[in-house]
Amino acid sequence: MSEPPVAPAWQTSQWFNTGTPLDLASLRGRVVVLHAFQMLCPGCVLHGVPQAERIHQQFAREGVTVVGRHTVFEHHAAMQPVSLAAFLHEFRVTHPVGVDVAVPGQRIPATMQAHAMQGTPTLVLIDRAGHIRRQHFGRLDDMTVGAEVMRLVRE
Amino acid sequence: MSEPPVAPAWQTSQWFNTGTPLDLASLRGRVVVLHAFQMLCPGCVLHGVPQAERIHQQFAREGVTVVGRHTVFEHHAAMQPVSLAAFLHEFRVTHPVGVDVAVPGQRIPATMQAHAMQGTPTLVLIDRAGHIRRQHFGRLDDMTVGAEVMRLVRE
Amino acid sequence: MSEPPVAPAWQTSQWFNTGTPLDLASLRGRVVVLHAFQMLCPGCVLHGVPQAERIHQQFAREGVTVVGRHTVFEHHAAMQPVSLAAFLHEFRVTHPVGVDVAVPGQRIPATMQAHAMQGTPTLVLIDRAGHIRRQHFGRLDDMTVGAEVMRLVRE
Amino acid sequence: MSEPPVAPAWQTSQWFNTGTPLDLASLRGRVVVLHAFQMLCPGCVLHGVPQAERIHQQFAREGVTVVGRHTVFEHHAAMQPVSLAAFLHEFRVTHPVGVDVAVPGQRIPATMQAHAMQGTPTLVLIDRAGHIRRQHFGRLDDMTVGAEVMRLVRE
Repeated sequence: MSEPPVAPAWQTSQWFNTGTPLDLASLRGRVVVLHAFQMLCPGCVLHGVPQAERIHQQFAREGVTVVGRHTVFEHHAAMQPVSLAAFLHEFRVTHPVGVDVAVPGQRIPATMQAHAMQGTPTLVLIDRAGHIRRQHFGRLDDMTVGAEVMRLVRE
Repeated sequence: MSEPPVAPAWQTSQWFNTGTPLDLASLRGRVVVLHAFQMLCPGCVLHGVPQAERIHQQFAREGVTVVGRHTVFEHHAAMQPVSLAAFLHEFRVTHPVGVDVAVPGQRIPATMQAHAMQGTPTLVLIDRAGHIRRQHFGRLDDMTVGAEVMRLVRE
Repeated sequence: MSEPPVAPAWQTSQWFNTGTPLDLASLRGRVVVLHAFQMLCPGCVLHGVPQAERIHQQFAREGVTVVGRHTVFEHHAAMQPVSLAAFLHEFRVTHPVGVDVAVPGQRIPATMQAHAMQGTPTLVLIDRAGHIRRQHFGRLDDMTVGAEVMRLVRE
Repeated sequence: MSEPPVAPAWQTSQWFNTGTPLDLASLRGRVVVLHAFQMLCPGCVLHGVPQAERIHQQFAREGVTVVGRHTVFEHHAAMQPVSLAAFLHEFRVTHPVGVDVAVPGQRIPATMQAHAMQGTPTLVLIDRAGHIRRQHFGRLDDMTVGAEVMRLVRE
C-alpha cells in the first residue's frame, strides 16, 4: 500500500472569515477539512456548504480546521468576491474561506488544478501529517463524514 | 367588503427566460403569479424559487403565468444581472424573470416599493382582472399555493 | 368522453375519530377525499397519512370531507384495530378513519376490491355528485393535491 | 472523573433478525450500539429506527454491533411481536432486534428500567469494555453519531 499523497499548498487571492491567511504547512499536526465549492453550484449551496459548516461547528472542540475554498471554474464574472462576501453573510457561513487563485488563460483555478478535482462540491480530508486521506466529488452523507473525520482525529 | 387593490405595473430593467418583455396589463384575463426574490436570500433559494418553478410547471396547462422578479434591496453589487443569469442557469429556473428597476438614491427597487413588500421571498397572486388577491412574505406551503392558484383559475 | 364512475359505498367494520359512522351517500353534495392506507406501509406512514391530515386541516373550511380507510391486505394479524387505534393516536391523525370490511377467504378487503385499488397508499377524489374524478396509487405532491381538490370544490 | 457505568444485561423475550440470541457479555471487546424504540412511536419510526439501520450498514465493517430493543411502555396490546415482525419487514430493518421482557404489573419493561431510560427513541453507546459512554433520549444528528461511534471504535 502506497503512501497517501501530500496535500498541495493553497494559492489564495483573498480570505473571508479569518483575520490572518491560512497556510496548510502551518496547520501540520491538525486534521484539516478542505471544502471546495462555488457559490452558484446547487449541490454546494444545498448540501456541501451547510455540511462544511456543520463539520466546523461539531469538530472545533476536537481541534479540526475546516477551510472552504471558492474554486470558480465557470461563470467567473458571476461569482466575484463581492458576490461571495454577500453569499457567506446571508448563508451564515462562519468558517474561513479562501478564494482560489485564477490561472491566466485557464478556466480552472490553481489549487483546484493541483488537487485534480473533478468539480464542486469536493470534500478533502487531510491528516495531521498533511496527507490527503480522502477526496470526494459530490455528496457524502453526514454519518460517513462524522466517522471519517473522527478517525483522523483519533490517529 | 372592499375591492382588492389593482396590481401595480412592472418596471423592469432586464428580462430573462423570455424573448419579449412581459407587461401586466397585457396579461389581463390570465391568472398571474408574481414571485419576488433575491438570488442570495436563503429563503428564496431553498424555498421560494423552486416553488415558483413548480407553480410554473404545474399550472402552465391551466393558463397561469408565473413571473419572477429580482427585487434586490441589499448587497446590490453582489447581485448584478451577470450573477443572476448564472443563478437562473445553474438552478434551472425556466420561468420568465424581470429585474426590478432601481430607484436612484434608494435601497428598495421600484416595483417592490409599489407593492409595499416587506422582504423576500414574497408571493403575489393576481386574478384575471388584475387585482392582488394575496401577497405573502415568507413561506407558503405547496398545498395552500396549489389550492389558492386553482381558486383563481376557476373564477 | 364518458361519465366518471360512481364511487362505491363503503363497507366498514369499525370507525375511529368520529362519533357516527360515515356514509358516502349522505355526503352527496360535498367533495370527499378518500385515503386508503395500511398502518405498517412505509409510503403511507411517511407520506400518505400526513398528507391526508394536511388536506383535512386545510380544506375543512371549504366543506371537504377527508376519510381514511384502513385497507389491510397483508400482515392482517399485525394490523388489527387495537394497533390502528394506537397508531392514529400516536401519529395525531384527527380525520375520521374506517376499517375496511374483510372478505372471508380473501386477502383484499371489500371496499378496496370495489375500487380495484392496486395497493396503498391510494388517494381518491370524489366530486359532489359522488363520482370518482381521480384515483391515484402512490405519491402525489402537495401542490397537485391542493389544486385538484380545489378544482372540485369550485365546481 | 468517575468510571462510566457498566451496561446492564439484556432481558429478552424474543429475537428478530438473528438466528441466535445476543448476549451483551459475549459482545465484550466489540463496540455495541443499543437502540431502544417502539414501533408506533413517531420519533422512532421517522428518525431513530432508520438511523440505527444506517449505523448498522456503515459500521458493520468496523466491527460494531447494532442491536434494536423493542421497549414497549404504552399501548402494549398494539405492539405485540406479531405486529413488530411486520413492521421490521415492511420498514426493511435488517439489524437484530430483541423484545424487552415485560415486568408483571408494571408498565415499563425490564431492560428499559435497568437503563433508567426516559422514553423512546433512546440511543446507547457501549464501549469494548461494556461501559455506557452515552445514553441519549431523543434525536441525535447523524454527524454526531458517526463521530461518537468512531471514537469508540478507535479506542
